[in-house]
Amino acid sequence: MKGWEDIRAEVLRRIRVRDWQPGGLIPTEEELAVEFGVARATVNRALRDLAEAGVLERRRKAGTRVAALPVRKATLDIPVIRQEIEARGQAHSFQVLKQAFMEPPVPIASRLGLPPGIKLLYLETLHLADGKPFAFETRWLNSEILPRPMPDFQELSANEWLVSHVAYVTGDIAFTAEGAGPREAAVLGVAVGTALFITERMTWTAESPITFVRLAHGSGYRVQTLV
Amino acid sequence: MKGWEDIRAEVLRRIRVRDWQPGGLIPTEEELAVEFGVARATVNRALRDLAEAGVLERRRKAGTRVAALPVRKATLDIPVIRQEIEARGQAHSFQVLKQAFMEPPVPIASRLGLPPGIKLLYLETLHLADGKPFAFETRWLNSEILPRPMPDFQELSANEWLVSHVAYVTGDIAFTAEGAGPREAAVLGVAVGTALFITERMTWTAESPITFVRLAHGSGYRVQTLV
Repeated sequence: MKGWEDIRAEVLRRIRVRDWQPGGLIPTEEELAVEFGVARATVNRALRDLAEAGVLERRRKAGTRVAALPVRKATLDIPVIRQEIEARGQAHSFQVLKQAFMEPPVPIASRLGLPPGIKLLYLETLHLADGKPFAFETRWLNSEILPRPMPDFQELSANEWLVSHVAYVTGDIAFTAEGAGPREAAVLGVAVGTALFITERMTWTAESPITFVRLAHGSGYRVQTLV
Repeated sequence: MKGWEDIRAEVLRRIRVRDWQPGGLIPTEEELAVEFGVARATVNRALRDLAEAGVLERRRKAGTRVAALPVRKATLDIPVIRQEIEARGQAHSFQVLKQAFMEPPVPIASRLGLPPGIKLLYLETLHLADGKPFAFETRWLNSEILPRPMPDFQELSANEWLVSHVAYVTGDIAFTAEGAGPREAAVLGVAVGTALFITERMTWTAESPITFVRLAHGSGYRVQTLV
């Protein structure tokens, strides 16, 4: 019996061998269901998957076309750092290196949409994998809007406390590469200028910013996913 | 009238203020539809979105729970390089720096699942944005399985030709940071050791590897998405 993955593979084959041309209309779901001898829902599942992957373009009434220049999409998991380290079979630990109420630099306040002069909780945390530096976390927390009691983040990292206690509505994430500055180099135990993989995240509730966090990962860090 | 985004915002609010505890069961779709005065499909759409985002865990028959430690997911578009550059309002051009049939290094052959000794098409392409180096692409192509005629990649980049001519079934993508080697530094016009953002991709048809490609991006490159 044919599953939707079989239909998807056959559709991809036809696109690859140019039976179906880029930009061209493909047969309707009904026609394909009859041709393949499967339920229309099975065809629908396959075409939906390929549309989500950017290979097909579906328009109500106008039918389904082969995308002329498909934009593929990749889905990334954003795990809690402890889980990420444990998934590698390593033990997670962390040290809070700094904790203070401070005014954030203007670019960070402005990215969080906060007026200048407002004080936030600033935290520096070093995450270790099997006792070796894994990531240096610098975080600004809009402590006013957070649930009480707030822990001191010595037992539970701010990363994990936020993920488990503060559901957020929107957020963004960015990845860059940067050479290690003196502070990052010292904390991570690498030479100044070493290429670091940087993750920056911001999250908001429906009304307010929650946090801005920057993670500087040591050498060899890799974000990987299927597409 | 309430849309599914309103329901999602209210669900997130209840989780945030701990009306609904991590790991706890939430009301059924029917109960929520009655409470909010919306169609059950609207509630379903909101809960499905939150389950995909990792905030809720849905089990058939066992009901829906607040995830104890939600794993958020981010979706990344993987555009053609030309489109990525044009989306910044810049002009794309490229230069093919090298093109040869060669045996790939053993680690690359083995990642592609190919026996040692097989020859592949090797291409080095420099992508420019407004005439300035944007990304240095090194690519191994399993030319045997590609549709004919194959272009010489002088008019259409290998990146764009593949995306528009070869539908793939599976692939993976990885991001890392690496210091520029001498060749990358020379091509990109940066100092040796400069932190580069590296993207590596592999794609397969149902049966065979298609390509392995490595993109070394110049300074300031940023991959960004909503979560």
